[in-house]
Amino acid sequence: MTQSREDFEARLRQIGAERYHDKHPFHHLLHGGNCTPDQVRAWVINRYYYQHSIPMKDAAFMSRVEDPKLRKIWRSRIEDHDGTDTNEGGIQRWLRLAEAVGLDRDYVASTKGVLPATKFAVDAYVRYVRDKSLLEAVAASLTELFAPQIHKDRIAGLLQNYDFADDSSLSYFQNRLKEAPKDVAFGLAWVLDQADTQEKQDAAAKALEFKTDVLWSQLDALYSAYVAPARIPPGAWQPHEGLAVAAKTAKAS
Amino acid sequence: MTQSREDFEARLRQIGAERYHDKHPFHHLLHGGNCTPDQVRAWVINRYYYQHSIPMKDAAFMSRVEDPKLRKIWRSRIEDHDGTDTNEGGIQRWLRLAEAVGLDRDYVASTKGVLPATKFAVDAYVRYVRDKSLLEAVAASLTELFAPQIHKDRIAGLLQNYDFADDSSLSYFQNRLKEAPKDVAFGLAWVLDQADTQEKQDAAAKALEFKTDVLWSQLDALYSAYVAPARIPPGAWQPHEGLAVAAKTAKAS
Repeated sequence: MTQSREDFEARLRQIGAERYHDKHPFHHLLHGGNCTPDQVRAWVINRYYYQHSIPMKDAAFMSRVEDPKLRKIWRSRIEDHDGTDTNEGGIQRWLRLAEAVGLDRDYVASTKGVLPATKFAVDAYVRYVRDKSLLEAVAASLTELFAPQIHKDRIAGLLQNYDFADDSSLSYFQNRLKEAPKDVAFGLAWVLDQADTQEKQDAAAKALEFKTDVLWSQLDALYSAYVAPARIPPGAWQPHEGLAVAAKTAKAS
Repeated sequence: MTQSREDFEARLRQIGAERYHDKHPFHHLLHGGNCTPDQVRAWVINRYYYQHSIPMKDAAFMSRVEDPKLRKIWRSRIEDHDGTDTNEGGIQRWLRLAEAVGLDRDYVASTKGVLPATKFAVDAYVRYVRDKSLLEAVAASLTELFAPQIHKDRIAGLLQNYDFADDSSLSYFQNRLKEAPKDVAFGLAWVLDQADTQEKQDAAAKALEFKTDVLWSQLDALYSAYVAPARIPPGAWQPHEGLAVAAKTAKAS
C-alpha cells in the first residue's frame, strides 16, 4: 500500500536511525580521540576517494536529466565540491585536512594506497546513479539527511582531541553544514513528490539502504585494515608512505 | 621495455605469489579446521554470490567478442557453471555444499544476507570485464593459475576437519580441479600472445592485480563480519537465519 507522505518520510528517516554510519565503531574511535595519527591518516586517504568521486556521481546523474531546471539545481553540488571563482570547493578543503594530518597532498590526490574495498564501494555508488532510475539516484543521496549531526559531532570531537584540528583543517565539515541542508531539502521534497506508488516508495527506500551500505562498508574496510588486529591488504597504504616532508622529519627526529 | 614471453609469465605468476588469497588468514582458519559452523556458513553464503556472478561475467565478455571461435571456447566456462544435459554445473554443486553445512539452498540462492562488501567487490569484477579491454578481461581471469593448489589444500583440509565434508559436498572443488587447468591454459597462452607491447603487458598485470584485490577483499569482509571481534554490518546474514529445517531442529534440541 502506498504510504502517506509523512509515513514515507518517517520510513526513510528510520533507515538512517538503524543503518547510518554514525553508529560504526570507527567513528566512535575517531570522534572520541582514540585514533592514532596513522589511523586518522588512513581515514583521510580513503575518504578522499569518496570525495573525489562525488562530483562524477553528480555528473552521471545530470547526464540523464532532461529537465534544464533540475540540472541547474543539481549543478550546485558539483560546484560545492569542485569549486568556483569564489569558493575553493570541498575537494581542496579535504586536501587541506590531508596536509594538516601530515600527508602529502599530491599523494592523497593520486588515490594511490586507497583500499580496494573503498574503491569497490564508492565505484558501486557512481555506477548505481548511472544505471538506476532518477528516483533511486536521488533517494540514495538522502543519507545527507543524517549528515549534519555527524559533522557537528566530528567537528567537536576533532577540535577537542587532536592537535591538527582548527578552523582551516576542518573547513570541509563546516562548509558541509551550510551546503548539505539546502541539497537535502530539495532532494527529500523531490523524492516525496515522485514516489507516488508503493513500488516507487519501496525502490527509494532500498536505494537509501544501498547508500548506507556504501558508507558502512568503507568504515568496515578501514577498521579491518588499520585498527587492531590490523590486516592491511596487499598494495594498500602503509603508514610510512605518502607523508609530507615536515611530517617525515618530525617522525625521524 | 616489452618483456619476453617467459619474463612476462614469471611476472604474472609473481603477482599470485604475493597477492593471491591463499595467504589470507580466513583460509588458514577454514582449511585448518578452526572455523565454527557459522563461520563456514557465512563463507558458503558469501562465496555463493561470487559463483552466481561468474557466468554473468563470462557472458559480458562474450558479448564483446566478435570472433566466433573465441566465443565458442569461452562458452565452456558458462557451461561448467550453469550446467548441461550431462553436467549439473558448479552453481548446483555449490548449493549442495550449502545444504551439507546446514543451510537452506533457496535461502543461499536468493543471495539475501550477502555482505554488501562482497557484492561491491564481485559486481566490480563483472563491470570490469564489461568495460575494459578484452586483454584485461582475460588477464583478470588468470587467478585460476593459482587455484588448483588452493582447491587441493581446501579439499584435504575440509575432509580432515569437518563432518560435512565428503565427495558429494566437495564435488564443486573436485570438478574445478578438472575444469580450471583447461581454462587457464587457454587464457594464459592468449594473454601471452596478445600482450606484445609494454603498455599491454602493464595493463594485463594491473588487471590480474585488480582481480587479486577482488578475491582478497571478499575474505577481509568475511573476516571482519564473522571472525572475532565480529562486526556484522546492518542487514547481513545473522547466524540463525537461512538454516535448513533439519539444522534448525538439531540446534533447538
